[in-house]
Amino acid sequence: MAKTYKATWIWYPGDFEVWLGNRFNNRRTERGGVFPPFWKQDSHWSMVEFSKSFHLKRIETIFITAEGNYNVVLDGKRLFGQPAELHLQPGEHQLNIKVQNLLSPPALFIQGRTIYTDASWLVTYEDKIWIDENGVAHGSGIYVHPGYEDFDTPEQRPSLYRLKRKTIPVYSVKHVRRGRLYDFGRETFGYLSLKNIKGVGTFRIYYGESQEEALDTEHCETLDVVEVSLEGITDMATGQQSPYSENYTLPASKAFRYVYIISSPQLLSNVEADYEFSPYKPLQSGQFRCSQKDLNKIWDVGAYTLDLTTREFFLDGIKRDRWTWSGDAIQSYLMNYYLRFNSRCVRRTIRQLRGKDPVTAHVNTIMDYSFYWFKSVYDYYLYTGDLEFVRELYPRMRTLMDYCLGRLDDKGMAVGQPDDWIFVDWVDFPMPKRGVMCFEQILLCKALETMKFCAVELRCHPQENPPQGSLTNNDYAGDAQKYEALFDRLLKQTKALFWSDKHHAFMHNLDQGRVNPMITKFPNMFAILYGYVDAKEKQQIMEHVMLNDKIEKITTPYMRFYELEALCEMGMLEYVLQEIKDYWGGMIREGATSFWEKYNPGEHDIQHLAMYGRPYGKSLCHAWGASPVYLLGKYFLGVRPTSPGYATFEVKPADYRLTGDMDGCVPTPYGRISLKHRRGEMTLSFEGGKGELVLCSEHRPKSNIGVFVPDKQTKNCYRLALEEPKQEYKIEY
Amino acid sequence: MAKTYKATWIWYPGDFEVWLGNRFNNRRTERGGVFPPFWKQDSHWSMVEFSKSFHLKRIETIFITAEGNYNVVLDGKRLFGQPAELHLQPGEHQLNIKVQNLLSPPALFIQGRTIYTDASWLVTYEDKIWIDENGVAHGSGIYVHPGYEDFDTPEQRPSLYRLKRKTIPVYSVKHVRRGRLYDFGRETFGYLSLKNIKGVGTFRIYYGESQEEALDTEHCETLDVVEVSLEGITDMATGQQSPYSENYTLPASKAFRYVYIISSPQLLSNVEADYEFSPYKPLQSGQFRCSQKDLNKIWDVGAYTLDLTTREFFLDGIKRDRWTWSGDAIQSYLMNYYLRFNSRCVRRTIRQLRGKDPVTAHVNTIMDYSFYWFKSVYDYYLYTGDLEFVRELYPRMRTLMDYCLGRLDDKGMAVGQPDDWIFVDWVDFPMPKRGVMCFEQILLCKALETMKFCAVELRCHPQENPPQGSLTNNDYAGDAQKYEALFDRLLKQTKALFWSDKHHAFMHNLDQGRVNPMITKFPNMFAILYGYVDAKEKQQIMEHVMLNDKIEKITTPYMRFYELEALCEMGMLEYVLQEIKDYWGGMIREGATSFWEKYNPGEHDIQHLAMYGRPYGKSLCHAWGASPVYLLGKYFLGVRPTSPGYATFEVKPADYRLTGDMDGCVPTPYGRISLKHRRGEMTLSFEGGKGELVLCSEHRPKSNIGVFVPDKQTKNCYRLALEEPKQEYKIEY
Repeated sequence: MAKTYKATWIWYPGDFEVWLGNRFNNRRTERGGVFPPFWKQDSHWSMVEFSKSFHLKRIETIFITAEGNYNVVLDGKRLFGQPAELHLQPGEHQLNIKVQNLLSPPALFIQGRTIYTDASWLVTYEDKIWIDENGVAHGSGIYVHPGYEDFDTPEQRPSLYRLKRKTIPVYSVKHVRRGRLYDFGRETFGYLSLKNIKGVGTFRIYYGESQEEALDTEHCETLDVVEVSLEGITDMATGQQSPYSENYTLPASKAFRYVYIISSPQLLSNVEADYEFSPYKPLQSGQFRCSQKDLNKIWDVGAYTLDLTTREFFLDGIKRDRWTWSGDAIQSYLMNYYLRFNSRCVRRTIRQLRGKDPVTAHVNTIMDYSFYWFKSVYDYYLYTGDLEFVRELYPRMRTLMDYCLGRLDDKGMAVGQPDDWIFVDWVDFPMPKRGVMCFEQILLCKALETMKFCAVELRCHPQENPPQGSLTNNDYAGDAQKYEALFDRLLKQTKALFWSDKHHAFMHNLDQGRVNPMITKFPNMFAILYGYVDAKEKQQIMEHVMLNDKIEKITTPYMRFYELEALCEMGMLEYVLQEIKDYWGGMIREGATSFWEKYNPGEHDIQHLAMYGRPYGKSLCHAWGASPVYLLGKYFLGVRPTSPGYATFEVKPADYRLTGDMDGCVPTPYGRISLKHRRGEMTLSFEGGKGELVLCSEHRPKSNIGVFVPDKQTKNCYRLALEEPKQEYKIEY
Repeated sequence: MAKTYKATWIWYPGDFEVWLGNRFNNRRTERGGVFPPFWKQDSHWSMVEFSKSFHLKRIETIFITAEGNYNVVLDGKRLFGQPAELHLQPGEHQLNIKVQNLLSPPALFIQGRTIYTDASWLVTYEDKIWIDENGVAHGSGIYVHPGYEDFDTPEQRPSLYRLKRKTIPVYSVKHVRRGRLYDFGRETFGYLSLKNIKGVGTFRIYYGESQEEALDTEHCETLDVVEVSLEGITDMATGQQSPYSENYTLPASKAFRYVYIISSPQLLSNVEADYEFSPYKPLQSGQFRCSQKDLNKIWDVGAYTLDLTTREFFLDGIKRDRWTWSGDAIQSYLMNYYLRFNSRCVRRTIRQLRGKDPVTAHVNTIMDYSFYWFKSVYDYYLYTGDLEFVRELYPRMRTLMDYCLGRLDDKGMAVGQPDDWIFVDWVDFPMPKRGVMCFEQILLCKALETMKFCAVELRCHPQENPPQGSLTNNDYAGDAQKYEALFDRLLKQTKALFWSDKHHAFMHNLDQGRVNPMITKFPNMFAILYGYVDAKEKQQIMEHVMLNDKIEKITTPYMRFYELEALCEMGMLEYVLQEIKDYWGGMIREGATSFWEKYNPGEHDIQHLAMYGRPYGKSLCHAWGASPVYLLGKYFLGVRPTSPGYATFEVKPADYRLTGDMDGCVPTPYGRISLKHRRGEMTLSFEGGKGELVLCSEHRPKSNIGVFVPDKQTKNCYRLALEEPKQEYKIEY
């Protein structure tokens, strides 16, 4: 993924995310007061050194731009001031540039004919010069390749990075009590603009994801107060002042569908909003259409929900928390691989969640969220094939894993320490979360497996010129061995401790020496998903847990994601389809224009708005609500990578009887895989990699194309090798 | 040391130093290019939470000022915006205020009648809220008491902190070649001012600690270029622009005695300088006068050298490196206890040098400098008695010691890893610095002893209400045991490995399995100083090493500090006095107005200016040059604490025959200990603590006051208990 063809801004890897995350995660407000996260917020390195050795054949002039104060040392000689231009002679050169910046990451942009900043440079925060007994100076710091995105001109300074905006109008307005209620027609996100302000006075602005919330001035979650005087306009929450103007856009973004404004009657004639969004290319995006309109609507609302929550990072909900959460984000990533394939946002969020060393708490303070974080790296690599990102991240994977391992109990099992949050899910029934939880062991197993997997991949694909201080192949080999042993042991212990032959299920937890015989879907469905049970046990879990009405129901889209995925993996697409229509369709029937944080079909009306003991505490646009985008792409269009970066992949369309006609696309690093399914006929194309089309037993192929082989394992489906990209495969059956 | 009597600005402890250190350590320039340190520069926590629980008897209004954006949560309720004023009702309250600031440490100042920010508040960078299975929220972060200094009004924002300045005139000026050479009469430090600028043109400004340096425009270490046009005045090194003015002060401070300026003849009529300094109170400072004028002059130049290098932190040299260096600083601290007793600057420098976790390198990348850092904490506690500072620091002492211990060899001995700088000293003879060096083991022993000592002290003096997450008495007890065992083992091993009965000395190092029989003063003198050899061995070291002409001479004031201290400890004051007069007096005779980084009496003229292969590379004002201030205070006035904070102390004036009449003061936490020594009579007073006056055998007391007891060990001196502070003791002998 190295970008070597042109100049780009570079910085210390991860620092852009640390910096952007600090801005991002501190935008949450609750009734006008800032509500920052309760975990550690790191800082970028304020001083770093960029360097490059090179050979010039001809004289060359390079132009230097930096974010921060900088110096330039050329061939060991410190130059005067902060030169913007260097004239280099032919020959060998060594360029070292230190940049200091407290406010945003020190960043460098150099343009020249053959010499320019790109991924091949080195960067360190500690060059560690030392002088030996012979007076010779040594540099022994740890160097890495820089971070970069696509800021490719001197003017595109990384610190100026913003999402895009466009103006959207109000859909309808009505007078309610002393104020006016504006309806934007659907859930949206951005900056409210007050238009044609006349005279002076105060605006009291109440936002609502629902009409009820906006009108409930005492309890709505977010609000603004704007004071207009002849001297200027003041945003009272932040104290920010602007000159007097007829039109005023609020400085802070909010989530809303409704806005209720109380002001003197003549003060305001209209509002609109600056919708803020992360841009994407529709022709490179995932798509889904089928004969069932309700399913299409669900996919559309899911896609809109994911788009609203795809911002500088993937966030949980746009009203609150407006923070990055690892457990939420891993689902956004997976949905994203089937919608926008915005890998940049995935990388950013993974880096931001990890932050910097030392690790002083689990990711988001939640033990499960640390474990998901590892899994998210595995997923990212599988979908994108971007091993350089894994290489960059690996040292921080190690230190986070060290932290996790350092907190195991004396049997080597993950246990909630007093300062760990054990989340699992929001449940409406009493579910103990302390002691050794089976669910957490299974997640930790996957994290250990991921560590081993990444160590093996990195060892198999060594760097050509590893920067000084890089991990060596020996390090990776040692790690692979270590993590595999830990994984094997933990999985064995977990099964021995929690699997019950009597109940055909994993038990809940071990606390104070006793195994709690409570059974929940959580550990059981993850054991299926991660492949930690054999075929027989899977069937037992299906019967005794997943499809057992006596087991407590899952009431968050968050865990329904995994529940339905596990059912899909077990081939129960028909059942899952109905669940999607009932559950997500249920939200739409309740008026949802984006999917919610929690949905209990047994509740009614304003019950749907309440959560956390607050009448409008629930987020009505929550990323984890968008999972149909993932399920429909992966299990109904049936597309999934079978080796990293879609080098090989599988397309296994669902039975025609489930969806009827179906048209869809799934983005990959090579472009899109497109599928058109009509009764008795499938049309398929792809842009790169090698695939296999898998037809289920109901779709016996007419041998008009290629050679279908019966599947060795299941024997009841047919496999066709897809060898030729950029060609249209038409298959009749 | 808790300050509870009035409001003061508070912040996360150590963060002020991290922030100030980043400004401070990046002011070094070399010929107009910035020269930052080559070690990790940390950042302050950009978001912290301050909190306090309290009970109000009456209604109270508090006023809130913060450096940064903030929120206020009162009794669990988040308030709107950033309130500057709160009206509190009687009763129990809980106040939580989060402050965010990337540019300088988040800081808080609250003023109220009974509620105000002070050392009793709590602060955390991670409040770690988590929600248990019953829906109950827990806060489980690690809390500490805040950092503070004496910024005691809302206007005294910590980020505005600056040293003081005063204008100083030029001493003489002469025309040389095309320019003018200004002489300020002695070494100084500050900002050059160009006065009465006429017209437009360019100033080329060359600074020199010597006349030779200022006039050598091609090789002087520091320079400035200022361009004056009708649009304004530009400092070309930084690009900073100012409006056109007749008087212009340069933005960056420099060290100089001489300034050579080349400009169009009419452009400039005069210069002066803004001398920048750390203020002190003469009446609370150390003093020294005796009958020997050359010694007084040495003390004066030492005091001036230390004052020049006592800035926001103690730095090494004012021309270069202008960085904090642990090995240099520990000497400054010790001199400072005998000069200004500026404990604030000691605390700052210790905190700044330590920085933040994770530890990725030795302090300043030098192994010996990590070890000195521990010792400096011991010294600080001994001289000030400020255990709260030790308590604050202890967790970071632990993590630095973990780092050190993690790099020992398989025998548990300190060995230079490939990325460690092993400094010891600048020597003119070949001295191997790799392998297991005896010198480093002895320093590590002292570091381990310090850890044990601090753990014991902290366990013996527990906090009343330890903040959540504090180390417990069990932790301290475990540490004390652990570090004691490590110390015992290492000292035994070191003596077994390196002590030679044949040579009556410690050998140099062990490399590739062989002990190098080289003998240097370094390990031997530290073994005496740290008390790791018995009386007999001490005498052997004296004879065979310290006073042995065949052993290589020490040529830096840095190691002469320890050499002469060891000789003082052995009672060789007469010898030391002569050494001081020769060595430091030698620099003065060479024209020094401040003491140098290195002085080899065998060199001449401009040889004294060169170092590091550069003709003016040597610093002519180096803190470690000021050690006579320490030696004269500790061994000639003879004052030293014998328990932490001068709770008990000793005064052991030198033999009258050495100094003649002697008048001096030594500052302590209680005020000054003053001594006036005349032939046959001593006058002594002190302000607190309990002391002992020790008279040497030559000064047999007339029993006109108190009861002198012969010293049990040495039998040839006399001890008088000093029980009554604020009284004048007059002793005839």
